[in-house]
Amino acid sequence: MRAATIRDGAVSVQEHPDPTPGAGEVLVRVRAAGLNGADLLQRKGFYPAPPGSPADIPGLELAGEVAQLGPGATRFAEGDRVMAIVGGGGQGELCVVHERQLMAVPEGLDWPGAGGVPEVFTTAHDAIFTQSGLVAGERLLVHGAAGGVGTAAVQLGAAAGAHVTATVRNPELRDRVAELGADVVLDPEGFADHGPFDVVLELVGGPNMPGNVQALNTGGRIVVIGVGGGGKAELNLLALMAKRGAIRASTLRARPLEEKALTARAMERSVLPLLARGALTVPVAETFPLERVHDAYERFAAGGKLGKIVLEL
Amino acid sequence: MRAATIRDGAVSVQEHPDPTPGAGEVLVRVRAAGLNGADLLQRKGFYPAPPGSPADIPGLELAGEVAQLGPGATRFAEGDRVMAIVGGGGQGELCVVHERQLMAVPEGLDWPGAGGVPEVFTTAHDAIFTQSGLVAGERLLVHGAAGGVGTAAVQLGAAAGAHVTATVRNPELRDRVAELGADVVLDPEGFADHGPFDVVLELVGGPNMPGNVQALNTGGRIVVIGVGGGGKAELNLLALMAKRGAIRASTLRARPLEEKALTARAMERSVLPLLARGALTVPVAETFPLERVHDAYERFAAGGKLGKIVLEL
Repeated sequence: MRAATIRDGAVSVQEHPDPTPGAGEVLVRVRAAGLNGADLLQRKGFYPAPPGSPADIPGLELAGEVAQLGPGATRFAEGDRVMAIVGGGGQGELCVVHERQLMAVPEGLDWPGAGGVPEVFTTAHDAIFTQSGLVAGERLLVHGAAGGVGTAAVQLGAAAGAHVTATVRNPELRDRVAELGADVVLDPEGFADHGPFDVVLELVGGPNMPGNVQALNTGGRIVVIGVGGGGKAELNLLALMAKRGAIRASTLRARPLEEKALTARAMERSVLPLLARGALTVPVAETFPLERVHDAYERFAAGGKLGKIVLEL
Repeated sequence: MRAATIRDGAVSVQEHPDPTPGAGEVLVRVRAAGLNGADLLQRKGFYPAPPGSPADIPGLELAGEVAQLGPGATRFAEGDRVMAIVGGGGQGELCVVHERQLMAVPEGLDWPGAGGVPEVFTTAHDAIFTQSGLVAGERLLVHGAAGGVGTAAVQLGAAAGAHVTATVRNPELRDRVAELGADVVLDPEGFADHGPFDVVLELVGGPNMPGNVQALNTGGRIVVIGVGGGGKAELNLLALMAKRGAIRASTLRARPLEEKALTARAMERSVLPLLARGALTVPVAETFPLERVHDAYERFAAGGKLGKIVLEL
């Protein structure tokens, strides 16, 4: 098979042996695979794939058709449209996924949309609901709201009855984030004056943390899942005590199979029904064929987009 | 009544009008009242009592006899031995407490012991179990383990089947902390080499935070309830993400009645049975009569003690 391949800090298309599904696993003929920040880190050599994932094929999410069932795999049949987060290897023509990790692609969702769903919606849902317990009526702040996870979080928060404030650096993208359901869209500068917030989804990192704590409501929760703006933060513990606040930090990628499978069950319960009825959309900024994977990475790295960059395979 | 009274940065005994219990409240004839770090902060003018508590009478915990029931109060009878955390005013001969906040004093616990129970055991139990979900088999790190909350946390963690590591600055107190149930007792210097820890109880503050994150186990929880060593911390968000860790920070004092009452119910369920059967002890370093409240505060401020400083009234 052909696959996006990272070698010496560059990404290109290379031939690889076809993978074969083991017990409980499914071979997926990949049709679309979204790009994520982790892919860029991996290209730089900073974020190696976890054990059990292909070391040199990037890609944390995919959508495609079931090509072959491994021994004991029963949840899907050949030809079913499926999607999943994976520890790596999503950006190849074939990818082995454990069946407990797979989700059915809702009807009406095309391949590029489906390829852009798993990582960002799972990440956003896990962060703001499973980890932070956001409920209707609470106030959610989403940093970096024009990105993949950000656009998912804005929509999920609004769909669940939260008041959503979004920060977006690029002024040209603010109207589109508002259309996704954000009640307030702000420049990041001075966001802390617009609290209090019950849940803060932090995708930028350290520079926002003092403001996040300052703007936190009593009992508020900050969840850090991205540090593109810097990984070091100053933390005022006395202020956090006064707010009785919590800071969680997480990644999906390193979690064991059981925990990842739980996130897939949560998606099936809470997110796929909303996608199926069109209450959520998957903003796709641009698609690239596999041969243009280098251009896709460069486009992703350039920023200034709304929604996902997706490879079509 | 007479009460410890804070005026102009000093604590002394002054006369006050007797308080009267309102609906659902109980007037307690206080027999013993432990000192806590918050009392010293309040003496310095840094930590005012919350609304509804006496502004100038310190004291966050008390034990005594029910002297009078307010309208509708039914949980206790006159003469019952009770104890409670309060928002302030615990260090007076009489104190009004809502009946939902009161707990029965276990048989066999004398007044100084009972006066030293509520704040430290409630704080420790809430932090390591209710907030951090410590379970048997996990590894607990208790900083400042020779203090009131520390000695409670070491005992509670050991009683619940956790492996307990304690940091104690004063070498002379380490053997006594080990006797309370700590498996490992360390100088704070270099504690981070002794992880990983599933739950870290942080009573010292900022200087420990980098080490806490470094020594955190996957899925570990840091709970900050004291910052005597400094309230500013450097936080490595990327390291916290890699651990999928959480930092919570809290105080009991500012919580609304309902939440404080929940902590009393948790104490009745999980802690009072252990006190009643002698599985937990209440280390009392020294007791002082009310008239010597100034000396009691100075003794508390001097540090180097194991367990509680308690006023007898």
